[in-house]
Order: sequence, then C-alpha cells, then structure tokens
Amino acid sequence: MTVATYTVEGMTCAHCVGAVKEEVGELTGVNSVEVDLGAGAVKVTSEQPLARDAVEAAVTEAGYRLVA
Amino acid sequence: MTVATYTVEGMTCAHCVGAVKEEVGELTGVNSVEVDLGAGAVKVTSEQPLARDAVEAAVTEAGYRLVA
Repeated sequence: MTVATYTVEGMTCAHCVGAVKEEVGELTGVNSVEVDLGAGAVKVTSEQPLARDAVEAAVTEAGYRLVA
Repeated sequence: MTVATYTVEGMTCAHCVGAVKEEVGELTGVNSVEVDLGAGAVKVTSEQPLARDAVEAAVTEAGYRLVA
C-alpha cells in the first residue's frame, strides 16, 4: 500500500472535490482519495506507487491543476 | 414573460453555476436561467412572476443562499 499527497490548484467547492475524487479514484490500483479543500491537498492511497503523469492527467481531466 | 434577477451567495465555480441553474430551472414556468458567477447574479426568465419563496427554496436546495 502506498500513500502519496499531491497539491491541486483551483478547487473551490464540494463539487470540485467530487470531480477530483472521481477522476483520481478511477486510476488503476487506487483504494481511496481524500481531499482537504482548504489546503488543496489530495491524499491518494493505492496498491502500488502511481505514475505522476497519470495523476496529473486525472486532475487535468477533472478541470484542475496539479502543482506539487 | 417575466425577467427577474436575484443575487446568490456562495457560488464559486462552474459546478455551482450548474447546480443553481438545474434547481431553479426545474421551477414551474421557468424558461431560462442565466448566471453571472463573478457578480453572483441569477437572471430568470419565466412565463409568470415566480414566488420568491420558490426561488429561495431552489437556491437553498442547490446548496447556496439567496441574498437579494
């Protein structure tokens, strides 16, 4: 099990959180996605380490920007 | 045809706009709902004047607050 925390820019409300959780949650091997809206923190628990490109693509697909 | 403009607090993104448009758009007699996110302005065109309570209930249902 791997836990990684990313910083996402642009999330402003619960709908934004839902969109990010949905897209990142669809990545292969992801068990859970927790979001701290105020901090822009997205904590992802997955079976194996995720490719950053894959996470970035999911965040972009949701309409936001992965910044760290 | 009646046009009325309301002020709604709390909308921060396109998802918020969509939620308000959906709920207000479901009120009987409503033809169109336009939202100016920056101004918090919701312009409603309807067959007959709407009861303010009904508009307020729809905005509340969407998760936001009618302030004017």
